[in-house]
Amino acid sequence: MTDYLRDGAEIYRRSFATIRAETDLTGVPPEIAQVAVRMIHACGMTDLVTDLAWSPEVVTKARRALQQGAPVLCDARMVASGVTRSRLPAANDVICTLADPAVPALADELGTTRSAAALELWRDRLRGSVVAIGNAPTALFRLLELVAEGAGRPAAVLGIPVGFIGAAESKRALAESDLDHLVVHGRRGGSAMTAAAINAIAGEKE
Amino acid sequence: MTDYLRDGAEIYRRSFATIRAETDLTGVPPEIAQVAVRMIHACGMTDLVTDLAWSPEVVTKARRALQQGAPVLCDARMVASGVTRSRLPAANDVICTLADPAVPALADELGTTRSAAALELWRDRLRGSVVAIGNAPTALFRLLELVAEGAGRPAAVLGIPVGFIGAAESKRALAESDLDHLVVHGRRGGSAMTAAAINAIAGEKE
Repeated sequence: MTDYLRDGAEIYRRSFATIRAETDLTGVPPEIAQVAVRMIHACGMTDLVTDLAWSPEVVTKARRALQQGAPVLCDARMVASGVTRSRLPAANDVICTLADPAVPALADELGTTRSAAALELWRDRLRGSVVAIGNAPTALFRLLELVAEGAGRPAAVLGIPVGFIGAAESKRALAESDLDHLVVHGRRGGSAMTAAAINAIAGEKE
Repeated sequence: MTDYLRDGAEIYRRSFATIRAETDLTGVPPEIAQVAVRMIHACGMTDLVTDLAWSPEVVTKARRALQQGAPVLCDARMVASGVTRSRLPAANDVICTLADPAVPALADELGTTRSAAALELWRDRLRGSVVAIGNAPTALFRLLELVAEGAGRPAAVLGIPVGFIGAAESKRALAESDLDHLVVHGRRGGSAMTAAAINAIAGEKE
């Protein structure tokens, strides 16, 4: 058996040092870089930064919202389960409505996916929230529709769904909207890097 | 707003068709390809297959173990939360011991990470289990130590931890062991593709 590093704090330190040494963060503002480094840590790919796009104030606004107690609204249970509760500044609610018993009937009624229909149950929490979409493109499209229809505006939207049908398009639509956003363009994305972004925003400790 | 596809079944169908059209599955046996396709679906990267390695019987043995009621032992809550319970053939237990109150003291005592120490609580479930490691290299290293020390042998091990320190090395060690395994070599990995692999093994329905 190869010997291996067993000290968790030292593993973190060396991981982040490796990422910062190998990633081209030219032109990435410091507060975005802090989030990018943690997302890279969650996926093992330093070139993730080439697909990253953001509005200038997204981290500031998302962080302030969390400090003021905003909920984190997640499209998938994996995103919610990846949020480290001890990093959240105000014991914030982390909400995923996908498993709510009302969702299958809502999806039938609205003629859409369960992931999109689940957002109906976000309506009264949406205003000022931090939205974290790490799985379903249809959830991100539906969010943009809800905001366009006059449902509450989130403080910030992390739009990081993954996949082959609709993912790239939904993230492009978010990036072109006037919402404060962070996206990973293209097909890549997913619950781990989305939860990592929330964890980075929640606390500045690397 | 761009129009977008809202039919969940059709989104799945087109996603898997795109993956099969764009991925070079030459030399990949059909039952491994079925798992690979679902893992690619979870990460958006068709070139994942170039890092995939496996022992010939891993899917057959893992599937049979699940059908016979084996538990799924996960290193991270995100992996456990990504396993689709309705696909499991025998209402199998999906176990993650990381949050057990005993783990921090075990980690101190053993001088290792919590992720590795959590495996102490797997000892009486390990034999014949399906192990799914999707986060921590130290958990995979510790698993190999436990097996070498004579703790029970799992039926199959999915070794897909992610990251910069120890991930590649731990997966190489698993691939060189005599355990039935599936690995993603290199830095890539993570809870989403690991849960996807379990979901593919659990049921053949694409």
